Amino acid sequence: MKLLEQRIAREGKILPGNIVKVDGFLNHRVDTVLLREMAREFKAHFGGKAIDLIMTCEASGIAIATVAAEEFGVPMLFVKKAKSSNLGGDVFTSEIQSYTYGKTVTLTCSKNWLHEGDRVLIIDDFLADGEALSGLIDICGKADATVVGAGICIEKAFQPGGKKIRSMGINLHSLAVADLDADGSLIIHGEDE
Amino acid sequence: MKLLEQRIAREGKILPGNIVKVDGFLNHRVDTVLLREMAREFKAHFGGKAIDLIMTCEASGIAIATVAAEEFGVPMLFVKKAKSSNLGGDVFTSEIQSYTYGKTVTLTCSKNWLHEGDRVLIIDDFLADGEALSGLIDICGKADATVVGAGICIEKAFQPGGKKIRSMGINLHSLAVADLDADGSLIIHGEDE
Repeated sequence: MKLLEQRIAREGKILPGNIVKVDGFLNHRVDTVLLREMAREFKAHFGGKAIDLIMTCEASGIAIATVAAEEFGVPMLFVKKAKSSNLGGDVFTSEIQSYTYGKTVTLTCSKNWLHEGDRVLIIDDFLADGEALSGLIDICGKADATVVGAGICIEKAFQPGGKKIRSMGINLHSLAVADLDADGSLIIHGEDE
Repeated sequence: MKLLEQRIAREGKILPGNIVKVDGFLNHRVDTVLLREMAREFKAHFGGKAIDLIMTCEASGIAIATVAAEEFGVPMLFVKKAKSSNLGGDVFTSEIQSYTYGKTVTLTCSKNWLHEGDRVLIIDDFLADGEALSGLIDICGKADATVVGAGICIEKAFQPGGKKIRSMGINLHSLAVADLDADGSLIIHGEDE
């Protein structure tokens, strides 16, 4: 998606630890005009499939997942990362590693809102090691829900998540791919380039 | 806002600890149709004022703040609760108590995206003890930004946040007010009822 690729190329930075910093428009301050364009792109790609629910992981996936859910006309379910007293006891959980926060995190989803046979499109802002996405897929598996696909804003090609998720047979679509050249500088391209 | 009041009355529950459970449409599974109606209500209330930025606190404020920001045609800034390696060092912070998670939390906001003179509308899903909202107001104060107002989906009238924030002179608007009757059952009404 050219609009996103250009924006990352113009404003994105690489921080130590190969963090792609896009906090001016995606995961701290959020540009809702760009968000809507990205949501339309997900609709163009996945809109031919029956989808009951958009699922994401708190916190930074929530903004894009909300706008995408509105495009698809379905609810958005955000899986929790922290133990909350608000969910009650009957939950699906999955343990993942969070590299951003440097610890193990338990993803938690109420059994009230994810059911056998639900057709789920997972949406997230980033795909790096694939931990969050694997956790969401695991939770869908535990619920006997079907993962129709996964839509990612920025895939980090120099981390193993994309390969791992595609090898699971998941229909994965990334709007932009961030890579590093030999000098460690950021290169942005489309999914098939 | 009648649509929200009716929805809470129909689907909301009171959990031990006086938690108002609305995780089927507001803060776990999110109904984007309701979200859009709530955002329009905020626009109707605050739309006459110049606003540069919608601010909220991760995680459950992000969905409504995103849709509200789209209504106002401004960016949405979500302040972080966890220490993230993605923000870099130059930040505003504020310490708050989180009753949901039972611990002290440091709200963190990059100085890159909040500036002196910015006119900020704070949006959040809940107002209970007012800790998160006070923290966001504190961060705006540290940045010499102006808090134009605060829009809340559900204010819990049996907790002190509403009174505390109004006594600070903040233009606070809640779309629905949750109260308890003598038996501890949930009563929902409008802000001025």
